[in-house]
Amino acid sequence: MKNNTFEELAAVLAAAETILIYPHVNMDGDALGSAAALCRALRQAGKECHILIEDGIPANLAFLDQGYCTFDQHILTDVDLSICVDCGDPSRFEKRQEKFAAAKHSLCLDHHSTTVYHCDYNYVDKEAAATGELIYKLLQAMHTELDREMGEAIFAAITTDTGNFQYSNTRKETHQIAASLYDVGIDANRVSVEIYENMRIEKMLIENLVLATMSTVAGGQGIIAYVTQDMLKESGALMEETESVVQRLRSIAGVEVAAFLKETTDGRIKVSLRSKQRVDVAELAAQLGGGGHIRAAGCTLSCSLTEAFDLLKEKLIDSIG
Amino acid sequence: MKNNTFEELAAVLAAAETILIYPHVNMDGDALGSAAALCRALRQAGKECHILIEDGIPANLAFLDQGYCTFDQHILTDVDLSICVDCGDPSRFEKRQEKFAAAKHSLCLDHHSTTVYHCDYNYVDKEAAATGELIYKLLQAMHTELDREMGEAIFAAITTDTGNFQYSNTRKETHQIAASLYDVGIDANRVSVEIYENMRIEKMLIENLVLATMSTVAGGQGIIAYVTQDMLKESGALMEETESVVQRLRSIAGVEVAAFLKETTDGRIKVSLRSKQRVDVAELAAQLGGGGHIRAAGCTLSCSLTEAFDLLKEKLIDSIG
Repeated sequence: MKNNTFEELAAVLAAAETILIYPHVNMDGDALGSAAALCRALRQAGKECHILIEDGIPANLAFLDQGYCTFDQHILTDVDLSICVDCGDPSRFEKRQEKFAAAKHSLCLDHHSTTVYHCDYNYVDKEAAATGELIYKLLQAMHTELDREMGEAIFAAITTDTGNFQYSNTRKETHQIAASLYDVGIDANRVSVEIYENMRIEKMLIENLVLATMSTVAGGQGIIAYVTQDMLKESGALMEETESVVQRLRSIAGVEVAAFLKETTDGRIKVSLRSKQRVDVAELAAQLGGGGHIRAAGCTLSCSLTEAFDLLKEKLIDSIG
Repeated sequence: MKNNTFEELAAVLAAAETILIYPHVNMDGDALGSAAALCRALRQAGKECHILIEDGIPANLAFLDQGYCTFDQHILTDVDLSICVDCGDPSRFEKRQEKFAAAKHSLCLDHHSTTVYHCDYNYVDKEAAATGELIYKLLQAMHTELDREMGEAIFAAITTDTGNFQYSNTRKETHQIAASLYDVGIDANRVSVEIYENMRIEKMLIENLVLATMSTVAGGQGIIAYVTQDMLKESGALMEETESVVQRLRSIAGVEVAAFLKETTDGRIKVSLRSKQRVDVAELAAQLGGGGHIRAAGCTLSCSLTEAFDLLKEKLIDSIG
């Protein structure tokens, strides 16, 4: 199976009257930004269109939802087209699968490398830095008159998925699309303030508690820190609010490998591993029954935090060699 | 006085044989990235060219100096051209002023709004997001064959001065230039890792100590924190390593005004103020004998830290209204 052309997809969209858009659970800026830009364009084209969601919208992305999102699984009884954006695996919209499948046709727009063609129509581009790039091209094929709101939603999608144009997925075309969004008057700084200057104070508190547990090995080339359920209670933070910590640990000068240990509610220890330039943490994780990528991997251990901490210290020292 | 054209500047550079480039003190990514790209281009054109500096190169920018920078004030006895980049005020290269003035001609390339024309030849563009943008255009006028190293230096200049394409100075042209740098094979991610994943552990430690002093007022709309000389000693950090703290304070959800108090070595209190969307902190600073911009301002107080802390709490409450 291969990709449809954007022109083919535009024709499919033109033929549909009732459309539901499905971003993945735990939506991020790319999922919601892409969905919002597409929903607005389809409404502008006279379609009845909604974004169907099953879990909450993160507070810092709420500005993207200008009346597009609904939790109502009964919305639209007769759906012409289901579109999943930024996800190619029905398990990532688990509670909405039935509704998704009930539409006359389905369409997938995604850029994840693990995505398989599972819809009637598909456009999966693993080279795209963000699904937002694909939405931009699709809107061009639809002859949508891009406006500022669509432009800012696409910018939000692209800037979040590229780590603000710093990750290696960023390419020439990413900047070319960003440049063209300025033609519709986007205020990139406003988008950025909405997304990045809306940090819950509890997140800052938990990060502080975690960083206070930092311990280095191998002359500072390895670094390790942890979070416990008690620390979450003390700060009022959610476990997901510790997600950027391992990245911050790796960003310290001289650090090659960072390990971050999370005590789960069932008493196991989830380990996140990151390396900077040299160490294969996928291999390290595999030794502990886990897996992942060469620079980002993880595993889950069934032991006490103290045991896990000591074990990881050893493994870090070994891996640094 | 008005700007020369890039073609005129290219002719001035072509006519010079010995050239010294002057970035400003406390160099940042734009100053050194711009200077490095220009120095490499001029050497490629057969010129004897160096970057003359008077203070150190920050560790995270050291990768940009591929043998260009020198502290040697006696380098080149007979200089054809002095070029100051990213600074338009000789006080920003104070210890090198005499050497700068001794050259046969002078040239200024800058984008700061306060810059006045002070050289024989000038290109000052207040709309440019970074001096790196001007270097890119100058190199085009010079018909330089841009290579990956120059491209990465220009990318470093632009990405740092735009807050990774998030600040309001970013414009269409900024992204267009970034896009074109991919044509010479830049590895933006490598540049990013060099710049941002080289944080001294002492910086993280002092940030943690500072954030532990956070106190909120007006239901979380105002936030205040401080650093003392003792905290610097405890962490081993430098005062300049607390500079991003006020930005982090402002990034908390619900915060409109953030104040950060620094105890100086002479016992005074330097105050940094930031606001998000509404409060004019320049006015607030003016009330305390300081000044600045509407969203970023500051002042210096001659009182104890406790007194300053209480005073600022009051002022924050007043300003939030």
